[in-house]
Amino acid sequence: MELKPTKPLSGFIELLPSQQRCFDECASRMLGVLKTAGFNMLDLPAIERAEVLTDKDNWDEIETQMFLFHKGDTKMGLRYDGTVGLARYVAGHLNDLTFPFRASQFSKRYRGERAQRGRYREFYQMDMDIMGINSLSTNYDAEIISVISRALNSVSEFVGPHYVNVGSRPFWDALFEYLQLTQSQKKDVFVLIDKRDKMGDDDFAAGLHDTLNDDCKENEIKSVFSGGYESFVNKSVNLDSAILELKQFMNRLAEIGVPDARIDLATTRGLAYYTGLVFEFKLTRHPELGTAAGGGRYADLAGKFSKTKIIGVGAAIGFSRMFVALLEGGAIDLTRFSAPVDAAVLIMGEENTAYAFGVVNALRDAGVATVAYLDADKKFKNQIEYADKILAKFSLIIGSDEVKNNTIAVKNMATGNQDILTVADAIVRIKGV
Amino acid sequence: MELKPTKPLSGFIELLPSQQRCFDECASRMLGVLKTAGFNMLDLPAIERAEVLTDKDNWDEIETQMFLFHKGDTKMGLRYDGTVGLARYVAGHLNDLTFPFRASQFSKRYRGERAQRGRYREFYQMDMDIMGINSLSTNYDAEIISVISRALNSVSEFVGPHYVNVGSRPFWDALFEYLQLTQSQKKDVFVLIDKRDKMGDDDFAAGLHDTLNDDCKENEIKSVFSGGYESFVNKSVNLDSAILELKQFMNRLAEIGVPDARIDLATTRGLAYYTGLVFEFKLTRHPELGTAAGGGRYADLAGKFSKTKIIGVGAAIGFSRMFVALLEGGAIDLTRFSAPVDAAVLIMGEENTAYAFGVVNALRDAGVATVAYLDADKKFKNQIEYADKILAKFSLIIGSDEVKNNTIAVKNMATGNQDILTVADAIVRIKGV
Repeated sequence: MELKPTKPLSGFIELLPSQQRCFDECASRMLGVLKTAGFNMLDLPAIERAEVLTDKDNWDEIETQMFLFHKGDTKMGLRYDGTVGLARYVAGHLNDLTFPFRASQFSKRYRGERAQRGRYREFYQMDMDIMGINSLSTNYDAEIISVISRALNSVSEFVGPHYVNVGSRPFWDALFEYLQLTQSQKKDVFVLIDKRDKMGDDDFAAGLHDTLNDDCKENEIKSVFSGGYESFVNKSVNLDSAILELKQFMNRLAEIGVPDARIDLATTRGLAYYTGLVFEFKLTRHPELGTAAGGGRYADLAGKFSKTKIIGVGAAIGFSRMFVALLEGGAIDLTRFSAPVDAAVLIMGEENTAYAFGVVNALRDAGVATVAYLDADKKFKNQIEYADKILAKFSLIIGSDEVKNNTIAVKNMATGNQDILTVADAIVRIKGV
Repeated sequence: MELKPTKPLSGFIELLPSQQRCFDECASRMLGVLKTAGFNMLDLPAIERAEVLTDKDNWDEIETQMFLFHKGDTKMGLRYDGTVGLARYVAGHLNDLTFPFRASQFSKRYRGERAQRGRYREFYQMDMDIMGINSLSTNYDAEIISVISRALNSVSEFVGPHYVNVGSRPFWDALFEYLQLTQSQKKDVFVLIDKRDKMGDDDFAAGLHDTLNDDCKENEIKSVFSGGYESFVNKSVNLDSAILELKQFMNRLAEIGVPDARIDLATTRGLAYYTGLVFEFKLTRHPELGTAAGGGRYADLAGKFSKTKIIGVGAAIGFSRMFVALLEGGAIDLTRFSAPVDAAVLIMGEENTAYAFGVVNALRDAGVATVAYLDADKKFKNQIEYADKILAKFSLIIGSDEVKNNTIAVKNMATGNQDILTVADAIVRIKGV
């Protein structure tokens, strides 16, 4: 019989136990920050109706981007982000929730495109959203940035320091209006701005020229990337209002202690549904990872599901993108995630097994992570090799003497020292290391 | 524009925030038990190649049972259990893992069949497996049962007490051999035994008669359900050996303190890959939930992926099945899961916002779950209503006096008492409740 392949499908992540322990520890710390900030953890279905996932109907193209399938007459697929499900959920539970409503999701998302380096087909994102009905202060935008900053700080020993770029969608809207661009020009220029990083300056300039064919307008737009907003003050009411909002917002971030926030009008979050301030977090020491987290303000989250206007500010942390790259790239020292347990119980003979189980339960009750090697008739050599291999801090050896005297032989695997202790003393010894 | 549906697809679970908090708390406690028992948490892909998911090729039927789809030339689908992926993973990482290897998975699984009451199309199971190369003591079977028992005890305030039924596949193999059944009769009788609970005694007897057409053999099989194994002692070597293994195993369970374990030869775990002892946990107060957890021993986990013989004992806890039914049925009092936070910070005027952010950060740093109502220009009435609605234990009110004096007005929402405190004293007050 031919053996089946043991590798996961391309684009799917599979970590070794020590990598997984580090991944889980980072998730736990960051989720701890979100819980302390009052976010409600939601766990929504990974499968949604196709009509919920997309408004488009060019199915040939959509099929390549998503995982889609039929059940009976229903076309459905795997979510590609957390927002579609959130919009549906909030619209369906308007009367069950208190607004402003804080929601967080830490869940797997799926993209059907061919896998590329650093782009997975199944990946975790950690989302957070704060939603209000009809109105929501931009203080909540500052709050989201503050919380992400705290979440990234909680794992800074692994990811290093970060900074955040803040952009403004209203600035670009006002600029396009001031430059009297047509609807179609606005859209095309925005696509160019979104792709500018990848295109380089020359291609960007050429693209602008193709679209606008107006040196003056092209130069105005290019000047944003070289000179910022300064030259656009006092040009139009809407430009001034967008600039004022951005400046006040940066002052607020400074006041509330978010370090390393800077204005970057090139930050636009592409063609997503954002309508206000937008932001992107980068890791100072890992520019190769691109954006570690990003988000912004949207004017109407759930317009497709409800007539109630839900305004919000939301962000997603690219959790798998960030940690899997760091773990697989060897950027994280996994030494302290290598050992699954503190204590390995080794049993010298089947007749001592019942006593050993009692010891194991007492240790676990005391919170000591413990395994027993339960093939009790195996030689001591095999058993101590096992304790060594799993990097147990202590081996607890149980033979007939220990059973008779109600004790354990406690061997410190680092020093080799061995003492005969009661269970209670053994627990103190192990927890003291 | 027609609004899109806000309900999830049928068979998919969606909890309210308070239900989700209870669900997460139960998962956290049970996973804590597994971690203390040295299980390595694995997070494997939800999508596998179709050939990994099934050996069958009756795709018309398989399509109705699973979620399957194509990407390019590759047929793939969503996992329906944790075992297929585990077998692939372990076979692919034989040299990276230390055996006996303990693995646990808490993840979503998918079944494509039409949803029924209590049967979901997307659901969590919590798996645990201990795997050895070539050999593995039945002490590990006892260990798995002990760990599940401890995990269920950790949530007993929600699910009540439990008991465990233990059966033996070797007993049935030996009995069929002793009764000289043909291969085809063995298979058909085993299907009947598996369905016996649902069929009732009369249909079971009729089914046996159709298959065997031998009163004597039929009566021997029926007697197992009424009289247990006693009448089969001293009938054949293999029967005696199966009975001895079962009796010794029950003694071991008693010795190691697993309460409420009983022999039940009707427990067979159906047609799954089990080859040794099998077991099912039931909730004493919730017979309507059926089996809360089940598992057993298998002789060859990964034969399709590797020539190395991996023997194991494994079990799955029907996590969604158990908790979603209890949560949606109102069997769990959610009062203490209703409030997302301890403290709600209310701000009397935009000019006090920066100070309020400082208070919020100090509280969060101290581990106090805190939200701020950041529409600072809203009336006090609106703000205190919000604190009331989210069931915050304390409202921390910040006006210009508090900013001037570097204090907070701390209102206990249960008693209505209000005191002016420093931030440090407020933290002590809140944590003391």
